[in-house]
Amino acid sequence: MNRRMIFRVIGSILQIEAIFLVLSGVVSAIYKENKSLLAFLLSAVIAITVGTLLKTFSKPKTFVIYAKEGFVIVAFAWMLMSLIGALPFVISGDIPSYVDAVFEIVSGFTTTGASIITSFDGISHGTLFWRSFSHWIGGMGILVFVTAILPSVSERPIHILRAEMPGPTMGKLLPRLKDTAVILYIIYVIMTVILIALLIFGGMPVFDSIIHAFGTAGTGGFGVRADSVSSYSSYLQWVITVFMILFGVNFNIYYLLLIKKIKNFFTSEELWSYIGIILSATAIITVNIFSIYQNFADSLRNSAFQVASIISTTGYSTVDFNNWPTLSKTILIILMFIGGCAGSTAGGIKVSRIVIMFKMIGKEIKHMLHPRAVSSVRFEKRPVDAATTKNIGNYFLIYFVCFFVILLLLSADSITVGTVNNAFETNFSAAAACFNNVGPGLSAVGPLASYAQYSDFSKIVLSFAMLLGRLEIFPLIIALSPSCWSRNK
Amino acid sequence: MNRRMIFRVIGSILQIEAIFLVLSGVVSAIYKENKSLLAFLLSAVIAITVGTLLKTFSKPKTFVIYAKEGFVIVAFAWMLMSLIGALPFVISGDIPSYVDAVFEIVSGFTTTGASIITSFDGISHGTLFWRSFSHWIGGMGILVFVTAILPSVSERPIHILRAEMPGPTMGKLLPRLKDTAVILYIIYVIMTVILIALLIFGGMPVFDSIIHAFGTAGTGGFGVRADSVSSYSSYLQWVITVFMILFGVNFNIYYLLLIKKIKNFFTSEELWSYIGIILSATAIITVNIFSIYQNFADSLRNSAFQVASIISTTGYSTVDFNNWPTLSKTILIILMFIGGCAGSTAGGIKVSRIVIMFKMIGKEIKHMLHPRAVSSVRFEKRPVDAATTKNIGNYFLIYFVCFFVILLLLSADSITVGTVNNAFETNFSAAAACFNNVGPGLSAVGPLASYAQYSDFSKIVLSFAMLLGRLEIFPLIIALSPSCWSRNK
Repeated sequence: MNRRMIFRVIGSILQIEAIFLVLSGVVSAIYKENKSLLAFLLSAVIAITVGTLLKTFSKPKTFVIYAKEGFVIVAFAWMLMSLIGALPFVISGDIPSYVDAVFEIVSGFTTTGASIITSFDGISHGTLFWRSFSHWIGGMGILVFVTAILPSVSERPIHILRAEMPGPTMGKLLPRLKDTAVILYIIYVIMTVILIALLIFGGMPVFDSIIHAFGTAGTGGFGVRADSVSSYSSYLQWVITVFMILFGVNFNIYYLLLIKKIKNFFTSEELWSYIGIILSATAIITVNIFSIYQNFADSLRNSAFQVASIISTTGYSTVDFNNWPTLSKTILIILMFIGGCAGSTAGGIKVSRIVIMFKMIGKEIKHMLHPRAVSSVRFEKRPVDAATTKNIGNYFLIYFVCFFVILLLLSADSITVGTVNNAFETNFSAAAACFNNVGPGLSAVGPLASYAQYSDFSKIVLSFAMLLGRLEIFPLIIALSPSCWSRNK
Repeated sequence: MNRRMIFRVIGSILQIEAIFLVLSGVVSAIYKENKSLLAFLLSAVIAITVGTLLKTFSKPKTFVIYAKEGFVIVAFAWMLMSLIGALPFVISGDIPSYVDAVFEIVSGFTTTGASIITSFDGISHGTLFWRSFSHWIGGMGILVFVTAILPSVSERPIHILRAEMPGPTMGKLLPRLKDTAVILYIIYVIMTVILIALLIFGGMPVFDSIIHAFGTAGTGGFGVRADSVSSYSSYLQWVITVFMILFGVNFNIYYLLLIKKIKNFFTSEELWSYIGIILSATAIITVNIFSIYQNFADSLRNSAFQVASIISTTGYSTVDFNNWPTLSKTILIILMFIGGCAGSTAGGIKVSRIVIMFKMIGKEIKHMLHPRAVSSVRFEKRPVDAATTKNIGNYFLIYFVCFFVILLLLSADSITVGTVNNAFETNFSAAAACFNNVGPGLSAVGPLASYAQYSDFSKIVLSFAMLLGRLEIFPLIIALSPSCWSRNK
C-alpha cells in the first residue's frame, strides 16, 4: 500500500477544507459575528497545519495508487474533514459538545441532514452557512468518488466496487477528472445557481436561498428553521420538490444530454424506474392523506414534496409526516431504503441496484421453472455479467447486516436514555434515515424533532452509520481493516 | 408437468387429513362435545370426498415427477389442507368467521402459532386439540419436505432449492422416505412422547401436556390459555425451553447420533452457531431485564425461555415481553429473522444460511483486500459451490422483498382499522412473526394479544405470508406462476 501517497492526497484535501472554512468565515464577517469568524479562522489554521504536515512528511516514492488506496483516501478524508470541520461549531459555542458537533458535520459532509440542533435561536449565520456548505462540498465529493474512484460508468452499467479493477493510477485518474468529473462539477454548479435564482425570484431571502440550494444540491436537508421549509410559499416548495428530484438523477444523464445523446436520456432504465417510483408513491400518498388536508392541491404538494425529499434522501419537510397514516409512513420508510439513482448526490441502496435485484429474482424464478432455458439479466440494454450480479447480491447482504447491527446498537442506548416514547419506530427510522443519508426519521426523530436526545454513544454509532452509507460500506470497512494496513502486502 | 400425478398425491394427502380429523373427533367425543364431534366428522367426510374425487379422476400415465411437481404438490397440499382444515372451527361455531378459521389453521399447519382467538372460554377441547395437532402434522410435513422433496442433506450441506436437481422420480422418492424420513419421523414421535411424559411428571394435566408437546415439537406455539405458559411451574417452563431448542436443531444431527456418528455432532458448525446465538442472546437479555425481575433465577428463566421460543420460532411466552426494554425486544425481533437450523421444524431464514452469508461477506472483503488470493466459502468442512452461494444470495434478496411487500400491505390495512396504537411496531413485528412462522409479535400483536383486530384482508395477507415463509418462498411462487401450468412445457 502506498501510504505516503495516501497521506499526501489527504493533506491536500485538508488544505482545500481550510479554504472552505475561510469562506464560511467571510459569511461570519458579513454578519459581524466575531466569535464565529474567529472560530473559522482558527479552524482553518488547524486544517492547513495538519494538511501541510501530512504533505511535508510524506514524500511518495511513486505516484501510482490502486483502488484500495482510493478507498482509504476517501474513507479517511471524510473522517478527518469531519473531525476538523466540527471545530468551528465548538469554538464559536454554537454546539458546545464536540460529539454533537462531529455528528452535525458528519451529517453535513455525508449529505444526510440529521441534526442535533433543537432551536435555531442564537445560532450564528456562519454556523448555518458552514453546515449547509458541507452538504454542497459532500455532494461534490461523492460525485468525484462515484465517477472517478469507483469504476467508470462507460465501462459498467452501475457503480459497484471492484478492488481488482485496473489501476487507476494517478496518471489515469487525472485526465478522467479533467474529462468527466469537471464537466459534472460544472453541471452541479450551474444547477445550484439556477436553483438559488429561482428561490430568490420566489421571494426567499438571499441567505436562505443559498442555504436551501446547498441542502438541495447535496441532497442534504439542513435548513435555517426548526420547521424545515413548512413556512415557505407553495411556489418555493414546488421548486425545491423539482430540484430534489433532479439532484437524485444520475449526473451522467445530464452529461449525455449536454453532448446531445438525447436517445440515452429517453431509454435510461434507471431514470424511468426512479420517475415511476416517485409517481406511484406520490399518487398513493396523495389519496392516503387527502382526509387530512381536505384539498387536492395541498395533498398533492405535500405528498410530492415528501416523496421527492425522502427518495432523493434530502430530508426537507413541509409537514410533520409523523402524523400521516401508517401506509404513507411505511411507504416513506421503504423509499428511504431505495434512495436515488447511482451517480447522483443521493444516498440509499440506489434505484439501479433495486432494478437489477428484481431482475435477478425474476431470472432465478424463470430458471427454476425452465432449468434448461438460458437467460441473462439485462440492464440499460446491456447484459449484466456474473461478477456484477454477485457483487450486488453481496452488497445487499452486507447492507442488511450493517442495518441490523446499527439498529441493535441504538436499541442498547435507548434503555439508558429512557426518554424515547416509541423506541422501536424511533430507532428503526433513525438507523434507516442515517444509514441511507436521509436525515429525519419518524417518532422521536421525526421531521420536527432532532437527534439531540440520543446518548453520545448512539450519536457516534449514527455518525459511523452515515459514513458507512455514504461510502457504500465496503471502502470504509476495507480502510479500517488491519489487514489493509499490514506491511507485507 | 405431470398434473395427474400432482392431483393424485394431493388426493392421498387429503384422505390422510380425514383420518386426522376423525382423531380430533375422538377427542371431542371423550369430552362429550357433540357439536364439535359432528363438525369433525362432517369435515372428514368432505376431506375424504374431495381426496377420493381427485384420485379417481387423475389416472397418471406415468409416475415420474420432478422437483417442479414436488413444489406444486407441497404448495397446494398445504393450501387445500388449510381450506378444509378450517371447516371444523366454523361448523362447531368456535371460530364463526371462515377467514379467521383459515388464518388459525394456516397458522397451525405452518407451525406459526399466531392466533385470532381472544378468549379461550367456551372453546371446545376438540378445537383446541385440532389446532395444536395441526402444528404437529405441519412439523412432520416440513420434515418430509426438507428431507425428501428438497435435495438430500448427504449430498449438499444445506437445503436450498435446485429445480434442476436430478429426478426425484416417485420410485427414487419412496426408498428415501423409507430410509431417512421414516427414521426422522420415529425420532420426532419419540421426542414428543418423552416431552409429554416430562410435562405430566411435572404436574401438567394430560390434555395440556399433549397440546404443549404438539406445539413444541412442531415449533408452533398454540396453547390452551390466553397467557400462554406463564402460569405453569418453573420446572415445566424449563422443560419446554429445552425442548423448543431441541426441536430447532437439524434432525439429521439426531440421525447421526443414532447411527453413532458422534463426531459429526460435535463438529456441526450450524449446531454450534445455533447454540452460540442462544447463549449470547440469553446472557444479554438476562442482564437487560434483571431490573424488572430483581432476581437472577427469574431473569435467566424468562430470558432463556423467550430466546428459545423465538429463535426456534415456537412462540410460547412466560411473560409479556412487550414490557421489556428496547434492547431485549430488538434482539427478539432479530432472532425471529434468524430462526432455527435447516432440517428442523423451525422457521426463519435458518442458521446455516446466516452463517454462510457471513462467510460470503467475509470472502468478499478478503477478495477486495487481496484480489489475487484464491479463497472459497467453506461450511461444515466442505467448500460451498458457486451455485449454492448464488442461490443463498438470491434467497436473501427475495426474502427481503417479500418481507417489505407484506409490511406494505399490512400498513394499508391499519389505516382502515385505526385501532392499532403503535402501528409501525405492530405491523413490522406481525409481518416478521408470521413470515418467519414465529407467532406472537410486539405491541398490538404481542404475546398477550391476538391478531383478531386485523381486517380480513390483512388476515389473508398474513396467512399467505405464513405459507410463503414455511415453504421457503420459491415453491409457492413457482406453484402459483401461470408459466408453471402452461401446457407446452
